[in-house]
Amino acid sequence: MITSRGYAAQSAKTQLAPWSFERRELGPHDILIEVLYCGVCHTDWHLINNDWYEGIFPMVPGHEITGRVIQVGSLVQKFKAGDHTGVGVMVDSCGNCVNCTHHQEQFCQVSPVQTYGSVGKDGLVTYGGYANNVVVNEQFAHHIAPTLDLAAAAPLLCAGITTYSPLKKWNVGRGHKLAVIGLGGLGHMAVKFGLAFGAEVTVLSTSASKEKDAAALGAHHFVVTTDDEQRKAVSSSFDFILDTVSAKHDLNGYLAMLKTDGVLICVGIPSEPFELSPFALPAGNKTVTGSGAGGLQETQEMLDFCAAHNIVSSIELIDIKDIHPAFERMLKGDVRYRFVIDMSTL
Amino acid sequence: MITSRGYAAQSAKTQLAPWSFERRELGPHDILIEVLYCGVCHTDWHLINNDWYEGIFPMVPGHEITGRVIQVGSLVQKFKAGDHTGVGVMVDSCGNCVNCTHHQEQFCQVSPVQTYGSVGKDGLVTYGGYANNVVVNEQFAHHIAPTLDLAAAAPLLCAGITTYSPLKKWNVGRGHKLAVIGLGGLGHMAVKFGLAFGAEVTVLSTSASKEKDAAALGAHHFVVTTDDEQRKAVSSSFDFILDTVSAKHDLNGYLAMLKTDGVLICVGIPSEPFELSPFALPAGNKTVTGSGAGGLQETQEMLDFCAAHNIVSSIELIDIKDIHPAFERMLKGDVRYRFVIDMSTL
Repeated sequence: MITSRGYAAQSAKTQLAPWSFERRELGPHDILIEVLYCGVCHTDWHLINNDWYEGIFPMVPGHEITGRVIQVGSLVQKFKAGDHTGVGVMVDSCGNCVNCTHHQEQFCQVSPVQTYGSVGKDGLVTYGGYANNVVVNEQFAHHIAPTLDLAAAAPLLCAGITTYSPLKKWNVGRGHKLAVIGLGGLGHMAVKFGLAFGAEVTVLSTSASKEKDAAALGAHHFVVTTDDEQRKAVSSSFDFILDTVSAKHDLNGYLAMLKTDGVLICVGIPSEPFELSPFALPAGNKTVTGSGAGGLQETQEMLDFCAAHNIVSSIELIDIKDIHPAFERMLKGDVRYRFVIDMSTL
Repeated sequence: MITSRGYAAQSAKTQLAPWSFERRELGPHDILIEVLYCGVCHTDWHLINNDWYEGIFPMVPGHEITGRVIQVGSLVQKFKAGDHTGVGVMVDSCGNCVNCTHHQEQFCQVSPVQTYGSVGKDGLVTYGGYANNVVVNEQFAHHIAPTLDLAAAAPLLCAGITTYSPLKKWNVGRGHKLAVIGLGGLGHMAVKFGLAFGAEVTVLSTSASKEKDAAALGAHHFVVTTDDEQRKAVSSSFDFILDTVSAKHDLNGYLAMLKTDGVLICVGIPSEPFELSPFALPAGNKTVTGSGAGGLQETQEMLDFCAAHNIVSSIELIDIKDIHPAFERMLKGDVRYRFVIDMSTL
């Protein structure tokens, strides 16, 4: 077995603390990655707190992993030692179901394996990227161009693909007015991708203080949604709204900001159900859609797009000992825009 | 003024009864239609009961109108006396807003005028098709091919276009599995259009007694949704579900029946909000969309499609004196599949 060191929650709702554990020996298609950076995702917080379902503990979170390949299995073809690589939200899938064969492995119907808190095909619990290394089947690791900063690239593996994928699916681009709700880890990536795709981008926020941030990211417009006049001014005006908020919030007001045939894309996962008023969708043929992460092929496409357009996440690099203060700031939305753990501090 | 006779509710929640009233004299672009048939829509019941908003009374319902042109204004070009024609849910719009100029007059943002219970540009209240005649701008009347039965064609003007429009928008057709929820006025039209477009059609119903009806309409499959085994068998199996139910119901169970990237199209309007569980959309990139009626151009396209494919509504023709027993049966779902008033009984 391969020895790992990381930060784990020993049980639900407890603080993360240093922990040593083991990962499987490299199989013929596995690679061993030295984790250099790992992004801090809202999901990490939800899962160590059992917010969505009962987790498997001890739990080592982290699914925005970048690092360097340090060893490859005997049949590995994609990678060689020294390559820059990244791992996202999943580390295995069946490969044969309708979703896997349609490049949507994130929705594998038979044996999906999440990067942490899951049980792999080897029968072992998976542990995430808040650790010094990770072992993964080469198919579930992605190439990261040497030109991309590995720390700032880490959030691309979840926040990046989660926003890139729906914007691509719905062909958001030139000629479209795109609004982004929530200027956090996902929202700021949505702004960057929306701009790169040629859309006219508006940031919607409850807080006027975010206007400067939105402008700094290149957003064309900013709307304080608690201001009735400003809301009224954008009524029926957007082709797409990408909603990244994971706290409970009212969708109906945002649906009213969509043009006829407009689409509201939800990528945040609140703890409580959404309520849709009965006329909100039919009056104007409106659409609400959800999107979860992205498949392997699309994740690589996204990373290549980022390399070609010099897109990375805007991050605050932290010492792993500061993970809990970072969670607290993240929950208050006090981060520009993603915390990334510098794993050399482990 | 032109004298009309019809059935009106003198105030909210009162029974419809004979009433004489006046319509405007024909303007240069108006036509006078002898109403021969008028379909009975759920909306009629909701509006005379103020279920959605405060109506204007007396109210003459009816927006599934077919009949014969008996007089035309001096500048009318589309019609001549004797033509078969139909009028749907609207009789005027501004013609200049973004929706009107994009052939979605049903969502006119400036001066939409509903077929009844609205105030027209002439300042007069509009009265619907439960009457012996109607005056309408020629742009808001449609040609009905002489080969189509005028009684069975009446429901096409609302139930028909309301189901045709979203199926066309989402390109539902060959290679798609389409499920239809609710085998009423809208649902049975959705089955007919789905089949005509080449989709594999399943009827979903809470009642096993509808199986024979579904088969008679040509549906390929039938699922009793209260049967756990049958539900499980169609999990993740449909590309599209068209939901015509206007009573409160749970969408999450239906979303689970959609394939990845599947679309749930809601055309019913319940009185209470829909609840969407937080994972129902992102897990599988699912979509919920609404659709309301259709524009003028698309309504004519639908009527021409029906003529070409010999599609009409399946109806029960009634005497206008039986309108209240018909409402009662309609509310219980006891109609195959649309009541149409024979206006010669007025």
